[in-house]
Amino acid sequence: MRKLAAVASVGMSKIGKRTELNGRELIVEAFLEAWRECRNIDRREIGAIYVGSQSETYEHQIMYGSIVADWLGLLPKGSVRVEGCAAAGALALRLGVIDVLSGLNDVVLVCGLEKMSLRTTSQVTDALMAASDLALEQYNGLTFPSIYAMMATAHMAKYGSREEDLADVAVKNHKNAYHNPKAHLQKLISRDEVLRSKVVAWPLKLYDSSPISDGAAVAIITRPELAKKYSASPTYVIGMGHKGDTIGLYERDDVCWPSAVSEACREAYSMAGIEADDVSLAEVHDAFTINEILNCEAAGFARRGEGHVLLREGQTEIGGKVAVNPSGGLKARGHPVGATGLCQLYELHNQLLGKSGQRQVPGARFGLAINEGGSNSIVATHIISN
Amino acid sequence: MRKLAAVASVGMSKIGKRTELNGRELIVEAFLEAWRECRNIDRREIGAIYVGSQSETYEHQIMYGSIVADWLGLLPKGSVRVEGCAAAGALALRLGVIDVLSGLNDVVLVCGLEKMSLRTTSQVTDALMAASDLALEQYNGLTFPSIYAMMATAHMAKYGSREEDLADVAVKNHKNAYHNPKAHLQKLISRDEVLRSKVVAWPLKLYDSSPISDGAAVAIITRPELAKKYSASPTYVIGMGHKGDTIGLYERDDVCWPSAVSEACREAYSMAGIEADDVSLAEVHDAFTINEILNCEAAGFARRGEGHVLLREGQTEIGGKVAVNPSGGLKARGHPVGATGLCQLYELHNQLLGKSGQRQVPGARFGLAINEGGSNSIVATHIISN
Repeated sequence: MRKLAAVASVGMSKIGKRTELNGRELIVEAFLEAWRECRNIDRREIGAIYVGSQSETYEHQIMYGSIVADWLGLLPKGSVRVEGCAAAGALALRLGVIDVLSGLNDVVLVCGLEKMSLRTTSQVTDALMAASDLALEQYNGLTFPSIYAMMATAHMAKYGSREEDLADVAVKNHKNAYHNPKAHLQKLISRDEVLRSKVVAWPLKLYDSSPISDGAAVAIITRPELAKKYSASPTYVIGMGHKGDTIGLYERDDVCWPSAVSEACREAYSMAGIEADDVSLAEVHDAFTINEILNCEAAGFARRGEGHVLLREGQTEIGGKVAVNPSGGLKARGHPVGATGLCQLYELHNQLLGKSGQRQVPGARFGLAINEGGSNSIVATHIISN
Repeated sequence: MRKLAAVASVGMSKIGKRTELNGRELIVEAFLEAWRECRNIDRREIGAIYVGSQSETYEHQIMYGSIVADWLGLLPKGSVRVEGCAAAGALALRLGVIDVLSGLNDVVLVCGLEKMSLRTTSQVTDALMAASDLALEQYNGLTFPSIYAMMATAHMAKYGSREEDLADVAVKNHKNAYHNPKAHLQKLISRDEVLRSKVVAWPLKLYDSSPISDGAAVAIITRPELAKKYSASPTYVIGMGHKGDTIGLYERDDVCWPSAVSEACREAYSMAGIEADDVSLAEVHDAFTINEILNCEAAGFARRGEGHVLLREGQTEIGGKVAVNPSGGLKARGHPVGATGLCQLYELHNQLLGKSGQRQVPGARFGLAINEGGSNSIVATHIISN
């Protein structure tokens, strides 16, 4: 097992409708937590800044790295904004790891943020659709709920999963988020409430869908050899995967098989020298409940076509074979698009250090994060160990 | 001198108003040229794709990497879209170099593109303003012509540069572009024509401003040890710089000193082990003519406050002390925002190999590229050698 990089510390804002703060202030909130956790560090040691965001659309603000550098007192350090729609946060992390691996910098800051609540639901729907194919999907009126609804109906028809299974993903993730003080939706829900909620694109209902969230998350990444200098309790990135699929669903052989997720997980397992069975907990992309079922299959936690069976058996609960989305996931912790990948890292880091209170996964050893953009078109995976 | 990475081959579309092609087709046009130049390569060897673009705004299309991977037959390889407004192209190059430096991949594809002509001039002006400060510049009605006009008036007041000097930058760059068959504005202009052209934001006139261009540029980057496998005539990245400045002008001590350019050049010179005097040619960011004068100072070609003097002496002409913007620069080759940094690389690579025909810089040995985003807020520099 090779340690690619160390996570010296992490920070995350409260996720939710944060009307009182703008995007840059959300980053400050997240950064201050990471900064307090990091020790022996001078700001000048941060060599570069990677910011994952779709801020162009939500805030009419690009070059976010330059704002982050300024507001955090890190100028004149260089920055890059990274985009892969909802995968932007994990891509920022990936680039941060590659940066320290390259030997260019000893310490980098990776950030993700989104300030979405400035926009109406239909504006957000339109903004996200920019992650589908302009020529052949957007112009034909597809939306992401309808894209994921097609994946869900395909899975139901092919493998016998049911609306109740989708609902149960939401129920579980809300239960986990109930113990997460930073979660957007910190409330318990029942299967009936999900099934009775408004249909967005059948079989997906309002409660099958992640909320529109404001939030930011950051991590301070360093070389493994320097981990103990900056942190009494670092975690380590030991595997990474990065794969792509067609941007449009229409080109795929099987719309309910996220092949890029599968390949990115295999790449990460191989790099880490572990297998799916070794994973104690996973933060997986559940923008809609169907994603979690598909991702459990693609990650190898269940066989292809049996993601819903794993769920029915309770194996994805905290205390089950693999705790899936102990934070509450995108569904209930919330989904500030560009921040999500780093919200996942935040959860894994704290879980692996035993700091997750009532939602602690017992004996957490290897954590997997699956962050995806578009219709599982760009996928970045990370394996974190303590 | 350490070779950080090799440029195996480069490709660039014709720059201009390319109404017949959409963004992805422009990338194909650029890629095919690079592909023909590269030898012994199988598409599967390309390990990752970095795409610099502001496509979100112009094409309502994000996740461009996924489209590029699909259209070029590179799936399932992972991709990242990189943004730093007009610096996106150089940032994509930088990340490609860091990727091969890290040992993760042997070969990567870096791309830049912009399809701008779909939008009106006022839409483009608004889109670009997203690279200034949302809260304190955009909302007060600033535009980029007015931001650069403030830099120009400050320089004129402080150092005695004149409107005629600005005009002469345009005249020189049009003269260079006249011999560049891929340039957007392939025509000679006179000082009088510039001075008589419509005032955009005094002292900047229409002919002081780069055009709104469609275009794409790509490069195939590999490890120096593999350069000769993929190319009979590679060039090498031997230095890189990456610095930031405040996103807003209002926070700066001296609005006519691009400090991030200066620091990013110093970083690149130091890495390459060369000095400003060693540079034979430079592609510098001249979105407006004043930029070229400021960048010549920041690059160390002239003393601070004497960029216009260097120009008056003819030292920035082809055949002068340092040929500045032999391609015609943003001003006349054209400025497809996300592609520009890689258009600069395209010129340097070909110049260093003696392939630039009538605009060939004699004895070209070290080429400097300065690519910047916003108000010189994010700057990436590269030094290329043969």
